[in-house]
Amino acid sequence: MKNYILRGENAVFFECGYSCDNEIFICLDGVKFFITDARYATEAKELINADVSVICSNNLIKDARAILRRFAPKIVVFDPNDFSVSAFNALTYRLRIHFLAKPDFSKQKRIIKSQSELEILKQAAKFGASCFDEFADFLRKNGEGKSEKELHFYATQIFKQKNALNLSFEPILAINENAAKAHALPSDKILRYGDLVLLDAGVKFKRYCSDRTRTACFDENFSFDKTQNFKDKKQQEIYNIVLNAQKAAINAVKIGVKAKDIDNAAREVIAKSGYGEFFIHSTGHGVGVDIHELPNINQKSEVVLEKGMVFSVEPGIYLPNELGVRIEDVVVVGENGAEIL
Amino acid sequence: MKNYILRGENAVFFECGYSCDNEIFICLDGVKFFITDARYATEAKELINADVSVICSNNLIKDARAILRRFAPKIVVFDPNDFSVSAFNALTYRLRIHFLAKPDFSKQKRIIKSQSELEILKQAAKFGASCFDEFADFLRKNGEGKSEKELHFYATQIFKQKNALNLSFEPILAINENAAKAHALPSDKILRYGDLVLLDAGVKFKRYCSDRTRTACFDENFSFDKTQNFKDKKQQEIYNIVLNAQKAAINAVKIGVKAKDIDNAAREVIAKSGYGEFFIHSTGHGVGVDIHELPNINQKSEVVLEKGMVFSVEPGIYLPNELGVRIEDVVVVGENGAEIL
Repeated sequence: MKNYILRGENAVFFECGYSCDNEIFICLDGVKFFITDARYATEAKELINADVSVICSNNLIKDARAILRRFAPKIVVFDPNDFSVSAFNALTYRLRIHFLAKPDFSKQKRIIKSQSELEILKQAAKFGASCFDEFADFLRKNGEGKSEKELHFYATQIFKQKNALNLSFEPILAINENAAKAHALPSDKILRYGDLVLLDAGVKFKRYCSDRTRTACFDENFSFDKTQNFKDKKQQEIYNIVLNAQKAAINAVKIGVKAKDIDNAAREVIAKSGYGEFFIHSTGHGVGVDIHELPNINQKSEVVLEKGMVFSVEPGIYLPNELGVRIEDVVVVGENGAEIL
Repeated sequence: MKNYILRGENAVFFECGYSCDNEIFICLDGVKFFITDARYATEAKELINADVSVICSNNLIKDARAILRRFAPKIVVFDPNDFSVSAFNALTYRLRIHFLAKPDFSKQKRIIKSQSELEILKQAAKFGASCFDEFADFLRKNGEGKSEKELHFYATQIFKQKNALNLSFEPILAINENAAKAHALPSDKILRYGDLVLLDAGVKFKRYCSDRTRTACFDENFSFDKTQNFKDKKQQEIYNIVLNAQKAAINAVKIGVKAKDIDNAAREVIAKSGYGEFFIHSTGHGVGVDIHELPNINQKSEVVLEKGMVFSVEPGIYLPNELGVRIEDVVVVGENGAEIL
């Protein structure tokens, strides 16, 4: 892959240590260009790796075409997920270059994390976990009587740590039956003692993401520990199944095992308990500078696990209008199986 | 435009009163479909307009193709900005349908705001303005000695109003020379009395955006009023030019005038003062459910202004490593010219 063109923010960051929301990155036989507009050019010149030429442009596509014409490569790889139909058509119009579509080729490049990436990911996970603790503390003291919207607001505030951290994604904070909507928007529903609370949240540290979900019973001893005592029998039953499913999946992680076998380990536990149809998503996804990377941990994935792959393990059961439970951790594949970050 | 297919979140919201981050909307001769995955289907069924069929899908493209094959329209309009190359190729593969690219066709549909949209936009602007006041208050009392990062955090917090509002975009909060980076990331730079502060921020109310920028001198009487007394002569000079440019542009707004003439009115004031090369962006953009809509107010736009168009007027001067000034309001075109929202 000597020649490629990139637009994805995280893909570009991985290449050159900087990115913004309007850029084109081109690498032609090792010569690298970062094209952006006047809003970002000053910053880009300050922060980007020294081997990359920063071009300030008022027409990114035009300047990218000029570079491609000048170097006249035969083949240029691109990710068809990164380019809109209009940008791609404008970029490639009448150029005598073969643009080779390689979906997720940047994510493929990033699938095995280096030692320094793992250290950052571990630190991100540590920060994320301590935000869970801080938010549990907040809930214990101030949660009763607050709405999902308010709680979501305070969760966001805590996870941002006065902007020392960024969010991996908008936290999901849901109570009882709202947790059955796997990506619920916060509502006006009020938290009361005895309720089930689901929190799915993560932070970004040095651009790398943490990701974690806990489901817990809200009471005066509230915590996000995995050991939970629900007041409601059904909630406890479902919780125990999901927790066992997660354990089974984590235990199945080993170098050389296929990703689909990890998914299957979780799915089997849930299916055997009779709730198979209510586990409505895949078991996990890779985590790195993107919150969704490779490998996918789903029923079809033939990817063979290698040392240094990092992904979430997050089975769930969702009973519409009743309750939802999801438990998620991010793991790295090591010599002795999964290590939870 | 009887037949069209949409993916843009705001475009879809405009059509059916609901949207999420994974959906395909299809309208074929008035028959409407909203396809989404299991994470959003419950919510979609609750919230979507009654004349739209919600389809819960684990392969959106596949189900969209099935609908297209069933109805077999000759032509389907799509926005080439909304579809990635890979999604478009998967969607259209071997279908005997002409997919007609109409860039921004949804934005075009939305260019003139209805009375009820204008009322929501005015309310959004009102909320946005009161957040500016609240943040000015905060700055006056607590701003001295805080970093851009911290101030950005508090601005975000105030503009969200405990999640009663959403943000139109990440606020831009910049001090002195950092304001020369038109879209600066918040840094560790500390705010001191006498500094120049630029704040560009907006809120979303019922999905509609507010957008406003103020540049102000930080002192014990701090406010975001347009009348400002800078300690620094150069700052005051630049500020006055930008304020005059904005006034000239707003005064030029009339039904029947071209958008480029509005841009020109601002640009001329700045050019005559000798700072033409430092006004590095266009004068404005439409505002609605998207923060960037039509019409564009730039040097090339031949769009003729009509009653009910809503756009920002935001000239600026950016002197690298020195300072930046931008002043922005959103206006609606009325019978008697511009009305500031």
